Amino acid sequence: MIILKKELKYCVIGAGNGGIAMAGYLAMMGYSVNLYNRTAEKLFSLMKEKVILLTGEVEGYGILNKVTSNIQEAIEDIDIIMVTVPAVGHNDIAKEMAPYLKDGQIIILNPGRTGGALEVYETLLRERKRNNVIVAEAQTFIYAVRAEISTHAHIYKSKKEVSLAAIPATKTKYVLNLINEVYPQFIEAKDILETSINNYGAIFHPAPTLLNSGHIERNIPFDYYTEGITPSVANVLEKIDKERMEIGKMLQINTVSATVWLEESYGGRGKNLYEAIQNTPAYKGLRSPDNLKTRYIHEDVPYSLVPMESIGTLLGIKTPAISSIIDVAECVTGQEFRKNGRTADRLGLEGLTIAEMHLLARKGRISKNRSFVEEVI
Amino acid sequence: MIILKKELKYCVIGAGNGGIAMAGYLAMMGYSVNLYNRTAEKLFSLMKEKVILLTGEVEGYGILNKVTSNIQEAIEDIDIIMVTVPAVGHNDIAKEMAPYLKDGQIIILNPGRTGGALEVYETLLRERKRNNVIVAEAQTFIYAVRAEISTHAHIYKSKKEVSLAAIPATKTKYVLNLINEVYPQFIEAKDILETSINNYGAIFHPAPTLLNSGHIERNIPFDYYTEGITPSVANVLEKIDKERMEIGKMLQINTVSATVWLEESYGGRGKNLYEAIQNTPAYKGLRSPDNLKTRYIHEDVPYSLVPMESIGTLLGIKTPAISSIIDVAECVTGQEFRKNGRTADRLGLEGLTIAEMHLLARKGRISKNRSFVEEVI
Repeated sequence: MIILKKELKYCVIGAGNGGIAMAGYLAMMGYSVNLYNRTAEKLFSLMKEKVILLTGEVEGYGILNKVTSNIQEAIEDIDIIMVTVPAVGHNDIAKEMAPYLKDGQIIILNPGRTGGALEVYETLLRERKRNNVIVAEAQTFIYAVRAEISTHAHIYKSKKEVSLAAIPATKTKYVLNLINEVYPQFIEAKDILETSINNYGAIFHPAPTLLNSGHIERNIPFDYYTEGITPSVANVLEKIDKERMEIGKMLQINTVSATVWLEESYGGRGKNLYEAIQNTPAYKGLRSPDNLKTRYIHEDVPYSLVPMESIGTLLGIKTPAISSIIDVAECVTGQEFRKNGRTADRLGLEGLTIAEMHLLARKGRISKNRSFVEEVI
Repeated sequence: MIILKKELKYCVIGAGNGGIAMAGYLAMMGYSVNLYNRTAEKLFSLMKEKVILLTGEVEGYGILNKVTSNIQEAIEDIDIIMVTVPAVGHNDIAKEMAPYLKDGQIIILNPGRTGGALEVYETLLRERKRNNVIVAEAQTFIYAVRAEISTHAHIYKSKKEVSLAAIPATKTKYVLNLINEVYPQFIEAKDILETSINNYGAIFHPAPTLLNSGHIERNIPFDYYTEGITPSVANVLEKIDKERMEIGKMLQINTVSATVWLEESYGGRGKNLYEAIQNTPAYKGLRSPDNLKTRYIHEDVPYSLVPMESIGTLLGIKTPAISSIIDVAECVTGQEFRKNGRTADRLGLEGLTIAEMHLLARKGRISKNRSFVEEVI
């Protein structure tokens, strides 16, 4: 293994499965990496040795620079902040970082789910009055990974391509230039509307989890993708995906079906989504969540399906499959995902034309007056 | 065992789990019993010996009078016709029987699901011009039973009480007088609106099946009730049940929650539905359906949930939980259950006041003029 010494300094926020893998990999590749987690408990074993072992597709280890639950220490002098916390934490982490951020720092949400970068950007604008921090979002997490303990991540597979956009979108190429050194898989999306609509977690996470509720709640493990997604479950996913694509087409962004995306990302092919999933080796062995408090519902419903339904409504697009999964998720969990989720209103998209949405994504804000005039007209 | 010789002649329609058990039991109790099934294949082994073995809660055997796939032969000279086919077949079987029915014969749907007796009665009115056949419906099937082969039914448990109503409701007591000789469990319901709304299959069948879709479609067997209905699944059932009860209260019928019903029917107690199910011995060992083509979806959604949702709409009652399960059922199966199901319109309830609905149930029909006048006013 070649140890590279790179200048860029990274901070990884969140010591979950994804954060451990990303911190370990960046460190293994020779970067200075801080790892932050809000609760210190999760970091105890890492604080001793600061070593993360990687197995699976990537084999090796990475030595971290700093392991901390102090946000100021974590992001001080950092060039790129990789946020790996669930979307439910995006707003909070933005508020926590706000006082300590410096102009020119880059925040990348891995992933943003739907509307993550927009929400974080708006929060930073509010908290910092003006904002020269670049907020980007990846359209999905780069790895299929599980980290049972914080010192070891098993990477089943890294995706071949992950699109990324910054807000303002004029900075996307700049961000990619920096990050492509270590992750050449990141490619340019038109803007954060594209990464937000091309959120395939919305397809793969809530519906299969809910349609396997009984076994997940009883914690009877099964292979989440290849066993949990039967032909009928896959049909539901295809319906959700069609609604997502309709929204994407109306927004004039590049989007491909989940089936095509699976082939592009993992090389899984099939004549329909069911077959493509069965033929995706990266999915083999990925176990089901062990209870219904999983991110697959509590993150992906309010931060993926709810914004899609809400943007769909804004655009006059019917989303019966998406809506039915939100309804069932609310019934099963007793949560009010629509009330607490990322609606178009909360994302500041309500009342905007499609052109204005893209303008917002490109410039970071639009003239309030202009949008006001539009509404009056 | 005392063999009784009774005068009443029964015909059981349908040689599924329930039909086999019912035919066997009636014959064992000394009645003359014909068994009809539309397809002869299912009857082949029974045609040879005409003996049905019963095990479980009831042990013994019954010798049938006639086993046939000829409807005329089946119902000729019969006093009570016990229909055990799925609700999807109610309309067809009514049409098939219509030419051969005689005034005074009694048809009992076991069970009617929601609106079964009303639908069959209307069909007979249409087909026979006038109708003096009594159509009754039981609120649920009397047994928890499985018949793997047509010559043997295993009865896990018979319910302690099953309400029954005839249309016209003025004949309910007459029907009960006859049938209570062999089935004292049947008790009087106010009318078919009560039996139709107190359709607990609507609670116990579609939601747990859909929320265990993956394992059912892969045919990984589990105990349907005690394993498939986890606490979160039970929460969904309680929400559906609350909506059902709200409809029942608006219709001024007697109704109890599914939890109370479970105790009344099977002696299963608990402080909530989850606990009551776990404490219902009759449910232990009842296996899950082995695919998604099950009656639990294809019968209970269009013939239980759809009419409840539709009657709810008619009464101005919101049914978000019921609606979400119908939506998901349509997504999972690709079927249009609302379009093809028993809507209030199809049951002839559209445009009626609550008083008129009960009048229809009591008399068998209401003056068209009166209902017309009501609408004009």
